[in-house]
Amino acid sequence: MKTKLRAILILSALLVNFFLFAQKEDSLTIRKIYENALLCDTGYNNLYYLTKKIGPRLAGTPQSLAAVDWAYHAMKNLGCDTAYLQETTVARWIRGDVEICNITSTKFGELKTKVCALGGSVGTPKGGILADVIEVKTFDELKTLGEKNIKGKIVFFNRAMDPTEINPFYAYGKAVDQRGHGAKEAAKYGAVGVIIRTLSLTNNDFPHTGVLRYDEKIVKIPAAAISTNDAEILSKWLKQDSALKMFFEMYCKYDGEAKSYNVIGEIKGSEKPNEIITVGGHLDSWDITPGANDDGAGCIHSMDVIRIFKSLKIKPKHTIRTVLFMDEELNQRGGGTYAETVKKENEKMIVALESDEGGAMPIGFSVDANSEIVEAVKQWEPLLKPYGLYEFSKGWGGVDIDPLKKQGIPLIGLTINAQRYFEYHHAQNDTFETVNKRELQMGGAAFASLIYLIDKYDFEKK
Amino acid sequence: MKTKLRAILILSALLVNFFLFAQKEDSLTIRKIYENALLCDTGYNNLYYLTKKIGPRLAGTPQSLAAVDWAYHAMKNLGCDTAYLQETTVARWIRGDVEICNITSTKFGELKTKVCALGGSVGTPKGGILADVIEVKTFDELKTLGEKNIKGKIVFFNRAMDPTEINPFYAYGKAVDQRGHGAKEAAKYGAVGVIIRTLSLTNNDFPHTGVLRYDEKIVKIPAAAISTNDAEILSKWLKQDSALKMFFEMYCKYDGEAKSYNVIGEIKGSEKPNEIITVGGHLDSWDITPGANDDGAGCIHSMDVIRIFKSLKIKPKHTIRTVLFMDEELNQRGGGTYAETVKKENEKMIVALESDEGGAMPIGFSVDANSEIVEAVKQWEPLLKPYGLYEFSKGWGGVDIDPLKKQGIPLIGLTINAQRYFEYHHAQNDTFETVNKRELQMGGAAFASLIYLIDKYDFEKK
Repeated sequence: MKTKLRAILILSALLVNFFLFAQKEDSLTIRKIYENALLCDTGYNNLYYLTKKIGPRLAGTPQSLAAVDWAYHAMKNLGCDTAYLQETTVARWIRGDVEICNITSTKFGELKTKVCALGGSVGTPKGGILADVIEVKTFDELKTLGEKNIKGKIVFFNRAMDPTEINPFYAYGKAVDQRGHGAKEAAKYGAVGVIIRTLSLTNNDFPHTGVLRYDEKIVKIPAAAISTNDAEILSKWLKQDSALKMFFEMYCKYDGEAKSYNVIGEIKGSEKPNEIITVGGHLDSWDITPGANDDGAGCIHSMDVIRIFKSLKIKPKHTIRTVLFMDEELNQRGGGTYAETVKKENEKMIVALESDEGGAMPIGFSVDANSEIVEAVKQWEPLLKPYGLYEFSKGWGGVDIDPLKKQGIPLIGLTINAQRYFEYHHAQNDTFETVNKRELQMGGAAFASLIYLIDKYDFEKK
Repeated sequence: MKTKLRAILILSALLVNFFLFAQKEDSLTIRKIYENALLCDTGYNNLYYLTKKIGPRLAGTPQSLAAVDWAYHAMKNLGCDTAYLQETTVARWIRGDVEICNITSTKFGELKTKVCALGGSVGTPKGGILADVIEVKTFDELKTLGEKNIKGKIVFFNRAMDPTEINPFYAYGKAVDQRGHGAKEAAKYGAVGVIIRTLSLTNNDFPHTGVLRYDEKIVKIPAAAISTNDAEILSKWLKQDSALKMFFEMYCKYDGEAKSYNVIGEIKGSEKPNEIITVGGHLDSWDITPGANDDGAGCIHSMDVIRIFKSLKIKPKHTIRTVLFMDEELNQRGGGTYAETVKKENEKMIVALESDEGGAMPIGFSVDANSEIVEAVKQWEPLLKPYGLYEFSKGWGGVDIDPLKKQGIPLIGLTINAQRYFEYHHAQNDTFETVNKRELQMGGAAFASLIYLIDKYDFEKK
């Protein structure tokens, strides 16, 4: 009995020691990962090139292919074991060279607003649309107003993002239906066009674009965004001049299909090369913006995982695969093709991670998986909190990795302090200058640290 | 026995209910505080005025008095019960109209650097100083080099802030001795002037100023900062051309004393008006910068506590006193006068809080007090974490409130995400535009929430 007790005590002590040793080793490795990231300018310089030298890169455009070419070489330069392109087919949508929106009021005069077509919108007829404007905040209002009040008019959706939401993504989620579905909803009642208030928590003069969805059974009407400032003016004028007219003209259209590519780089797993950890961001951006935060930063974060592992000579057991997805903004064909390929090749995917919340300070991880995996990630909080990573929650993974969900693959999104994000989301001012080098570096380090832990401890073994 | 047990059970249930009720009430109040802050532009507009209309406001300058005058009226407009000025005397330091620094190398040519005198520095003689330059990183190096290598030269302190520190304030702490004490240390070995590398983690062209300290027993030599970019160039040139010469000329000087003021606003306590909670930031800024982050934001955070309490009709038990301190940058006379007055008046101060880490996202509180109070603050983490406040640690309070420490008063600093802070700290680019409205609003809400809890639960009763 005594001997047994002693054996148990010794074993316990050994286990505790082993645990402490492992924890200390992990802590030291994560420290090295952060040091490595914070001393390296490669990612920041790559973001400079992507946003300043290539710039806007909507899927299907020549610029997006320039981005693919650049990213492929940049990925190789990081020292990955393999880099390759994964072909996909994207629908080409072209903004056209005319985007005009004028508001005329006999009472207030004329306002020439900056305007941008929503992604995927049809154009107006040549010569534009001149019509009365009716302001609404919800689809229910459309229903109440009905065809008699809406037919022949331009519907102006003016429901602002809710500034009292602490997480700006929640505020976005509560307002984005106007952009995504406003055109088809308004068309049901005979509207001839849709103008939306830019989805932003900031009052300024930048219109923000973003995708809309039509219903093939409902007539397609053109839709565009005006800035928050102009939306305020329009709303004020409308209250006192319901006879106000709006003219808008734009020549955007879908124009066939084009080949495009996901850009992929891998470090081969040392023990389980056929088991894969995917980490990615999306390479495309809207055509009106250099997309530094959306999602240049996510690409850099994901590429930096490879750079850091190689640089620190960390040999992962599983294969680590960085994927720069194409066409997130319009139709998510890159993400779709990737998931189909994973399925077709019967690849074993341990987890897929995505960064698509910008280049600001990373604050945690959002886990879209079963509760065991959520808990597995949460257990690492003590190791990661010293680096500002404190938010470990069940939540959303990412748009590009989402198609993997139905294959039962756990998804993890990098959570970023998003308070500034909607200042420049989908807008011209999403520039390199809005990204701070240290905060960008910490995104790559956060990814590399979590992936190091997942690779070492393997969810399935828990 | 049974009855007693039942009584205990009932009592326990009541206590648990009471606790849950109190927690729910607190949670609702904090939610209201954040909603109120996020819907209100007053603080942001005040920051605009302070930084754009008044601008740089070093203690002792006419601009600093304009800031006092403006702040007094702004404080009254917030609806506080009392607003008043607290007189103090500050030493006037004047930059003068000449600041020149040229580096000439027979090998590389000439480099005209931007330069700024360190605060409190003596000027050069008229006609400037032309001398050889010797680069060092530490005071130990000075000692090793000795008078024979240093005498007659300009000492160039070029120890960069350590980018691998996760908290930039730690990196600053490890480098700031060069600015604070470099001149007097170099003078010991006969140096004729000192140039320091700007204390920043960013490579750009802005020189950052900041205060130095002389020793009255050691000859005072002039000291100035050049930008990180120029420091890199100078260091590179020096390595290949030790005969390189530097010329620098500047006419800065101390010039007598001036009256100045702390600006104070109060809400009278409803139950214990003689027990005070102080919350503040500093109103002065360096003369070369509008000081939006340092410390316009801290003033706005502190003023917003009064606005929020009044707006939500929260009646604090204790008196809440917002103090905008004068002269933090140079000689901390405002903070000194405040502490002396507290002592002289024998005021009972429950706690003093300060915000002086900029206008970015608040992430927690740093408590400089005994462990009971540290634990008292930590217990509120569950209430505050939904708002991004996760860092509750024993640490530093703030420069202006620090003199209160020897009176045994607990100090609390608002911890801000400081990754971007040293990009613009003490430099021309610390502008209004670097502050995001939402992040600014959350600073005021964070202060108001903690003060609401402190006021309600009173540290001393724990």
